[in-house]
This record gives sequence, structure tokens and C-alpha cells, in this order.
Amino acid sequence: MALVVQKYGGSSVGDAARIKRVAQRIVATKKAGNDVVVIVSAMGDTTDELLDLAQQVSPVPPGRELDMLLTAGERISMALLAMAIANLGHEARSFTGSQAGVITDSTHGKARIIDVTPGRIQEAVRAGQIAIVAGFQGVSQNTKDITTLGRGGSDTTAVALAAALAADVCEIYTDVDGIFTADPRIVPAARQIPRISYEEAMEMAACGAKILHLRCVEYARRFDLPIHVRSSFSSREGTWVVSDPDTEGTEMEQPIISGVAHDRSEAKITVVGVPDKVGEAAAIFRTLANAEINIDMIVQNISAATTGRTDISFTLPAADGAAALTALKRIQEQIGFEKILFDDQIGKVSLVGAGMRSHPGVTATFFGALADAGVNIEMISTSEIRISVIVGQNEVDSAVAAAHRAFDLDADQVEAVVYGGSGR
Amino acid sequence: MALVVQKYGGSSVGDAARIKRVAQRIVATKKAGNDVVVIVSAMGDTTDELLDLAQQVSPVPPGRELDMLLTAGERISMALLAMAIANLGHEARSFTGSQAGVITDSTHGKARIIDVTPGRIQEAVRAGQIAIVAGFQGVSQNTKDITTLGRGGSDTTAVALAAALAADVCEIYTDVDGIFTADPRIVPAARQIPRISYEEAMEMAACGAKILHLRCVEYARRFDLPIHVRSSFSSREGTWVVSDPDTEGTEMEQPIISGVAHDRSEAKITVVGVPDKVGEAAAIFRTLANAEINIDMIVQNISAATTGRTDISFTLPAADGAAALTALKRIQEQIGFEKILFDDQIGKVSLVGAGMRSHPGVTATFFGALADAGVNIEMISTSEIRISVIVGQNEVDSAVAAAHRAFDLDADQVEAVVYGGSGR
Repeated sequence: MALVVQKYGGSSVGDAARIKRVAQRIVATKKAGNDVVVIVSAMGDTTDELLDLAQQVSPVPPGRELDMLLTAGERISMALLAMAIANLGHEARSFTGSQAGVITDSTHGKARIIDVTPGRIQEAVRAGQIAIVAGFQGVSQNTKDITTLGRGGSDTTAVALAAALAADVCEIYTDVDGIFTADPRIVPAARQIPRISYEEAMEMAACGAKILHLRCVEYARRFDLPIHVRSSFSSREGTWVVSDPDTEGTEMEQPIISGVAHDRSEAKITVVGVPDKVGEAAAIFRTLANAEINIDMIVQNISAATTGRTDISFTLPAADGAAALTALKRIQEQIGFEKILFDDQIGKVSLVGAGMRSHPGVTATFFGALADAGVNIEMISTSEIRISVIVGQNEVDSAVAAAHRAFDLDADQVEAVVYGGSGR
Repeated sequence: MALVVQKYGGSSVGDAARIKRVAQRIVATKKAGNDVVVIVSAMGDTTDELLDLAQQVSPVPPGRELDMLLTAGERISMALLAMAIANLGHEARSFTGSQAGVITDSTHGKARIIDVTPGRIQEAVRAGQIAIVAGFQGVSQNTKDITTLGRGGSDTTAVALAAALAADVCEIYTDVDGIFTADPRIVPAARQIPRISYEEAMEMAACGAKILHLRCVEYARRFDLPIHVRSSFSSREGTWVVSDPDTEGTEMEQPIISGVAHDRSEAKITVVGVPDKVGEAAAIFRTLANAEINIDMIVQNISAATTGRTDISFTLPAADGAAALTALKRIQEQIGFEKILFDDQIGKVSLVGAGMRSHPGVTATFFGALADAGVNIEMISTSEIRISVIVGQNEVDSAVAAAHRAFDLDADQVEAVVYGGSGR
């Protein structure tokens, strides 16, 4: 008997009919002989509706109260799901994040999970019940206040709880068939990836792939917990995220590139004319960190010996742009830089693939493809298994398509390889 | 500095604009130098909408899950109210029933409060914060599950918390100016009652007056906590419910009758031809108690010596009628009664007044007024300070009006007494 943790997102439980369908899937998993623990998000637009109400009473609602408000969303969906399961003749019990033992720090709106003490969930499972747990929420260790985990929080709840329960698998249900080699809306020939490593999935998530959230994959990797990303609308196998995707050895050679991710949500700030002295860059980034702004890519130009000054460019979530500019202007005099440039018309395109470790030509092929497509590169950043470039926002689509084609990821091309036929 | 507990019902916080207005009233109370603890119900129709969702996924939802679902309602209103107060520059913190220490038994849907341990509320008040507490909800002592208190639960939360905090007053805000001598929709000349005793308020509540719930007044009486029922739409004084309404001595003599209450929600069951043996009536009412049906009035006819059989009539909430009939039919053979009659076209009209203790003519005046109005009396029940009669449902209005007039409660008449003028 396996212990299966399943997570259903907001669109999977968007109305009563969908909740009943999800209930049937859960009961089917239970009937197949598994213990089942379910994590559920708020129904469809509930969170947006609650945020709208909050805006109507207060332009800047306190974080503690906003978390209290938003957690009503999962409370509704989890209770309804438990009822729908009960209506199918199986016993289900819903639990808030607090009841499920999801202990967090006190950072309202984006709390981090410190510990999971799932005693009540284990008790329910031992009693043969299906446990339904509210995603996205926890309780702070010190103040005992209700917290939310921020973006992708329900996935993180699912993986953290699965790890704490030593589950056999964490199934993340979504509205697509799994993780794709690129966004199918941009690259119609994009293929579903059957198996991918934690590292690659993390890079994909960090680079804008929306399916899995970075924190959730980090958590799964730490506990070596297999994630199965699949569609709640079909019973097809989805994408398995595992430590070593090749152990079950397909005969194909490992692809150099697993996928092409893109992200249009960042902006670029350039601090112009920073005195080239030790500690100036550190002062800039400490200021931004104090304002709780997450920096992504950083590029510092080679300092011009003649002027003694340098330019520092970095990217950040566009939504944090205004806060960053305010924070930087406050230290302009102290640091003595000349001016700040802001550009939110950028996009990030990233190649991700464990295979590039052993294939040194990747960068050249990638940049060549972009040049052929007439795409100008503004910034570059690399990791061992990823290359990211910043391009103009209106060039993102053609950059993604060009890279996808250049690394033989298009579905037709793969079929050609496997079946030896021509590109029909 | 006084500690004021305020309770706002669902219509007072029905939308963002009303929430903001309630926030202003709370802040005004705080600014006047009081510590303030607020109990709030779910916004307007939220509870009905959630019940409707529940019906869509399950015809008979489990009580535990229904409570989990419904408690989302106050979670939303209390968080929004705390935000609205924060927006006015005052610190407010919202607390669920569980966080506020409202400990109940495990009867989902109508749990009873066992204990209140308001440590977190006291802490908030000491820190100068305004505490906003979810009404209607608690946490069960044994299972630590979320419970709801059932009808009038928010009022009960308010009074219980006020008692535990040793508050100076519990203000119940509603959409009318207080408790009236009769329902103004039936008796336009009905007057607002300035002060009333716990006992009278309890009888009024038990007899269908909708303003205060019986359990809430019982609780206040036990702790001798003054309740002030008043309108959230004006700053007028409302009705004070206190232990001795006459200590602050108005010059008027205590009225014989405080008010006329009515209730159209009951039904009457008559068990015909019950063998007149010891224990048969007990068996009938034990059966109903086991089915968790609350009986109100009971009348047993004098047994006819010739037949050795008697009829037993009783009233109960019409909503429990079907369950009662089922339970009774199951014991028909065992008890040996002849048949059951069911009538839900009845109404109850009650006179309530501490003054009737010392005025023996009340019953005669009441029955005379009903006779003059052509109203037929089907059942009678009395307590020391109340007389209730069951009449046909379509005769309730005329019975209430007749009684109100007969005991000089009409506003014109009172003015005539006070001012010595004629009934102009």
C-alpha cells in the first residue's frame, strides 16, 4: 500500500462540478489501495475576489489581516471537497494548515515553512480517512498567527507534507499534461517531458516556467521525494521530477537541452557611474535586500580605468521596480552614482539542461540561433545547467522558438530521430 | 476606562461601505477612552451562499465539514474589519473563535460553549489593540475540531467573551433601535423598551422575539452582565437588559406587561388515544428527546375515565415536524396510541411581564381581548412572568394587536398617561 499525496490547484476545484470530479479521482486512488492525503488551493477566483474586498476597505491592508482573509479561500474549498468525498461513501476530514502542523516563520504573505508536525494527518490516515489539507497556509511558530506561503504555496505545502509523511509520491495536478520543452502557446511543436531532474526543474521554475514553483522543487530535492506533475483532466502519465531521470534508461541519449523557459515579469535597472571602490556594489545590494527585493541577474561592466566609474545592471520582479527605485534614490548621494535607468520592456529566455555540462558548444549554438533570428542580447547569466539571456520583451517569442528549433526539441524533429522517417 | 464588548451582525457588515462605517464607530468608542473588543458575524448573505455551495456537492454534508465551511464567513468579515480599522490609524487584530479561546462541546452545528480562555484577547487589549473576534464559532474541547454555535451564536459569543473578560457592558448592534413592546410591522404603535430584566428578555426570546437569542440572555444573566441592544445606524440609546430594570427608578409605575411576542415557526402534534397508564407520556417524550427534538408547550387532556385513553398535544419547531412524526410512528405499536395529528398552521402569541406576578387579572384581560377580536385559543401555557397561547396562524396579527392595546402598550396611550393629555 502506497501513501499518495495529491495537490489540486484552484482551477481544478473552480466550481461544484469540478470539486465532484476531483472527489471521484481521489476516491479512485483510495480504492486502488492507496492511503491518500490531498492538498487543495482556493476555488478559482476566490483569492482575487478576497483581495478586491480588501482593497475596498484599505489601500494597504496589514499583512497579518490579509493572511487571515485569504486563508478563508482554502477553508471553503477543502470543506466542500471533504463533503463531496463523503457523498461518495468515503470518510474525509479537512484540516487547516495550522491543524495539519504546517509551522512557518512570521513573514506574512510569504512565510517559509520551518517544520511540519503532521500528527493529526497521520491519525486520520491510520483511521482509514482521506485527509484534505488547506494549501498555501500555515501558523507562525512564535506568534501563533495564521500565515500564507505566497506564490506557489500550495505546491510547497504538498511537497513539505509529503516529505514529513514519507509519502511515496507527490502528485501535482494542473490543467496541462506536465512540463513541456517550451510554452506550447509560443512553440506549438513543444513536447511533454516524461522525466526531468530536480536541478533542471528548479532552473526551469526559476526562469519563468509556471508549472512548478522553485521552492516546491527545492523541498522535494532535499527529501528526494518524487513529484509527478499531471493533468486533472486526463489519466495520462505526466512529468516525473526525480533525482536521476535516467535510471529507468530510455534508449535515447540524454538530450543536451531539456527545455526553453521564458519570463516576461522582470525589469532591468542600471545604476550608472558608480565609483569603482570596494564596497559600493555591496552597499547597493544591501539596500535592496533591506527593502526585501529579490535580485535575479547582475552584470557589472568592466570599469573604465580612465573614469574610475562603472555601471551595474540587474534584473528584478517588475512589481518591485518602484520600491527599488525609491530605495536607490535614498542612497544616491551617499554612494555618489550618477543616475538610474529603468526598463520593464525586457524578457528572459533560458536554456535548461543537465546535458550541457558535457557539451561545451551550447552557448555558441544558442547565441547563433538568436543572431539568425535577429534577436539582440542585453544581458547574459549562466549556471552549470542553464544559460539565460535578457532580450527585448517583443523578441521573447522568436527567441524561444529559435532556441527550441536549434536544439532539436521540436516534436517533428524528435519523431524523425526516433522513427528514422522524414519530418512529415 | 471601561471595557466595552461590541457585537455587529451580518447586515451591519454586509459590504465594504458598511464595514468602513462600523470601523468608524469602533474607533470612536476607542477614542472615547474605552478598551474595545468586537465580535462580528459573517457578511450579509455569505452563510447562505456557502450553504448553497455545500448543497451542490452533497445533499447531507457531514457536520464537521459544514462547520469548517461556514466558519470561513466570519474569517472574511473579521479580517476586513481589522483592515478597515487599521486604515483609520488604529491597531486591530482579528482572532478566530479558536484563537479567542472559545471552547465548546463537539455538537457540530449547535455546539455549546464550555469555557472561554481569552488569553490572547487580553494580551491584545493590554497592548492597546482593538481585538476583532469571529462570532458563532469555537473549537471542541476533545477533538480540537472547529465548531459552530448555531442560531444566535454570535450574540452568545459576545456575551460569553464579555463575561470572561469582565467587561462593563456588551453592546449588541442590530438594525432596529432595541427591543420593542411588539413587532412594529404588526403593531405600528409599538414602543421601544428602555430597560428590561434578564427574565423578561429570556421569555421574549423564547417566545419568538428575534432581537436577542435565549442562550445569549441566559449567559448574561448568569454573569450579571449588562446587555445594551442598539442600532448600528444611529447613536440613540437602545434597550438595556439588566438584572433589575427599576433600580434607576423612572417615576412611572412598572408596567404590568413589558411586551407581546409572537412566533410563527412552530407546529402542533397531537397524539390521539394514548393508553392512560403510568409512563406512556414519558416514553413518548423520551423518544422525541432521543431524536434531538426540542418540545415547547405540552397539553394533556384530562383522561376520559370511560375509555382509559387520553390525547397529548405538544408544539415543536415546524422544521422538526417530519423527524418527530417518523420517531413517533416507530413507537406507535409499542405504546398503542390510535393516531397522530399534525398542524403547522399555528402561531404562538405571548404576553411577557414581571408585573404580572402581582396582577392576578392579566389572564382574564388577555383572554377577553382575544375573544373580542374573535381569536380562538387552541393551547395555553404559562410561567410566572409569561402567558402564551396557540392560535391559528392567520390570527396571529390580530391577537398581537389586541393584546398590545388591551394592556395600554400602544404609544399614544402611554403618552396619554405620562403627559396627562388625551390620545392626540
